[in-house]
Amino acid sequence: MATVGQVITCKAAVAWEANKPLVIEEVQVAPPQAGEVRIKILFTALCHTDAYTWSGKDPEGLFPCILGHEAAGIVESVGEGVTEVQPGDHVIPCYQAECRECKFCKSGKTNLCGKVRAATGVGVMMNDRKSRFSINGKPIYHFMGTSTFSQYTVVHDVSVAKIDPKAPLEKVCLLGCGVPTGLGAVWNTAKVEAGSIVAIFGLGTVGLAVAEGAKTAGASRIIGIDIDSKKFDRAKNFGVTEFINPKDHDKPIQQVIVDLTDGGVDYSFECIGNVSVMRSALECCHKGWGTSVIVGVAASGQEISTRPFQLVTGRVWKGTAFGGFKSRSQVPWLVDKYMNKEIKVDEYVTHSLTLGEINKAFDLMHEGDCLRCVLEMHT
Amino acid sequence: MATVGQVITCKAAVAWEANKPLVIEEVQVAPPQAGEVRIKILFTALCHTDAYTWSGKDPEGLFPCILGHEAAGIVESVGEGVTEVQPGDHVIPCYQAECRECKFCKSGKTNLCGKVRAATGVGVMMNDRKSRFSINGKPIYHFMGTSTFSQYTVVHDVSVAKIDPKAPLEKVCLLGCGVPTGLGAVWNTAKVEAGSIVAIFGLGTVGLAVAEGAKTAGASRIIGIDIDSKKFDRAKNFGVTEFINPKDHDKPIQQVIVDLTDGGVDYSFECIGNVSVMRSALECCHKGWGTSVIVGVAASGQEISTRPFQLVTGRVWKGTAFGGFKSRSQVPWLVDKYMNKEIKVDEYVTHSLTLGEINKAFDLMHEGDCLRCVLEMHT
Repeated sequence: MATVGQVITCKAAVAWEANKPLVIEEVQVAPPQAGEVRIKILFTALCHTDAYTWSGKDPEGLFPCILGHEAAGIVESVGEGVTEVQPGDHVIPCYQAECRECKFCKSGKTNLCGKVRAATGVGVMMNDRKSRFSINGKPIYHFMGTSTFSQYTVVHDVSVAKIDPKAPLEKVCLLGCGVPTGLGAVWNTAKVEAGSIVAIFGLGTVGLAVAEGAKTAGASRIIGIDIDSKKFDRAKNFGVTEFINPKDHDKPIQQVIVDLTDGGVDYSFECIGNVSVMRSALECCHKGWGTSVIVGVAASGQEISTRPFQLVTGRVWKGTAFGGFKSRSQVPWLVDKYMNKEIKVDEYVTHSLTLGEINKAFDLMHEGDCLRCVLEMHT
Repeated sequence: MATVGQVITCKAAVAWEANKPLVIEEVQVAPPQAGEVRIKILFTALCHTDAYTWSGKDPEGLFPCILGHEAAGIVESVGEGVTEVQPGDHVIPCYQAECRECKFCKSGKTNLCGKVRAATGVGVMMNDRKSRFSINGKPIYHFMGTSTFSQYTVVHDVSVAKIDPKAPLEKVCLLGCGVPTGLGAVWNTAKVEAGSIVAIFGLGTVGLAVAEGAKTAGASRIIGIDIDSKKFDRAKNFGVTEFINPKDHDKPIQQVIVDLTDGGVDYSFECIGNVSVMRSALECCHKGWGTSVIVGVAASGQEISTRPFQLVTGRVWKGTAFGGFKSRSQVPWLVDKYMNKEIKVDEYVTHSLTLGEINKAFDLMHEGDCLRCVLEMHT
């Protein structure tokens, strides 16, 4: 392409400071350096982690930055030494890298690759510890190693999943975060078995993906818990079989669930990010074996607590990040499963807007009927 | 025997009230009812759980009672319907029952049988919800379904492990609690693999049994943490390879351990019962896979806490009771392993006294050089 090796000037939504509306700016996107990939982002969705950092509550948040981490696009150009993707490849940028070489990747026990974390955690690229984004020479920080709220972005090659070019990018962009997080929490982290009783706290995108994961794993009862009863009808389509609104009960919700399930659930999932709900999720588990998985991201500084007796009597407390999926290896596999109609994706897309309407998209996130709003980036 | 069907009058150490010296009394021990076994206790050890309830801090503690739960003896008589043991069998009474019929036993996921818990939790027998111990007609409560600080005790048949009659009872009595708890925490709960790095907080009997379990599992480094450096020499014999005294460091102990181990340990075990140490034990685990097992029993009302990020980034928090061993099935197997010299037992017996010296034995527990004090019951 004519742009190879050149700075590209394009549109991006810039977060100049915390909690102020994003501004659509003309940004300069430098060419990819060694081990980097420049991607033309075609579609991006919004996720609550974007909103969390944007709100200023994330102590690691850096401004000005370009947010966004759930997207799909096409490789525009690659830097020196990049062999696994080439211009024209359809890709999903992955905030969780997979280098296949570090202690984490080689452990066989986790998806938490550490290769580029030191750079992505502070908004820059590994090669020169600088940003590829600028506006009139002023650098703009990267975010989560993805920064998909830009028409072009630069990411590390270990953070790019090459996918089936036939897959509709306006849908599979969701496989960059929320849907895999929920499915993987069930399949990889909890390893739910057929016949299990499952409780899901929070029926947003991640919670519904947990429900779908539990359904495909053969769970016999899938109990959805949410303070918005309107969410139940939609949740049924994702596998939820019973609904509890904590507002309808005087007893602590964990006691309500224990009473309903002859001693508690086999697996529970916290998909909200509320530390007090995390406790309820643990304590609604069955003595002897119940496992609770923290999926939601709590605000900085908050802590979980419980009596140690809960664990000594056999409950297990764990957590998950990106559902335990190895990003480069398994995101393409998830795309294939979607193409084979084995997992839902379309059903999570409740709204479609354009990049220019991104602030409206953030507002939509706080409304109960919005699961995912997908932005078309080049209109 | 002549005593079958008769009340037996014998000596027992009675805890009349919390925190007052035990009193050796003549107690009446009623014959076993249906599903019960009367055991002549030959040797009993003391464990910290006895001291905890005796101290009055256990809200479930009932007085007057006969404490004791780590012992060995010979069946004197059995009640109606008891088929698995008969008079003369050598046995270890087990505070954790195994009925093989309840939801817990049949789950294949836990050793926490629920069959007699409702009775043993309130100091009585299932059959008539009464005690078999009395003094001049005044009932004395049972404790943990075992009450081994008596020359004769009555237990439920689901709580009796029949063992090799050649095993020395003055040693294998320890297989009633502390040693299996430590070994099983490693083998059953954590499932430590060869090459793992292990941290053990607290180098008492349970901590040393964890060390031995980790050594037999092939752990490459076994780090012992204790505030009494004198314990290290002995700990080496049980497999501990490195010692850390938190008092020698200004940094939080979890940071000291993370620095020493290139990111943290694979498995950690809290063998003290201190909730703040439980947090350190979790947080010294390696990101991505480190698993922390709570083995110690915390005081009532105390809570553990941490940032949920610790779990979301791959650490797992669990606990263990009786090391996950199925008591009736596996205590005999542990006795056999001891007879085959595959596990240590003798090495934990640091003191031997008689029933009449039981208060002195309680004092010994608080001294660092005492692991287990075994009482001879009939002298």
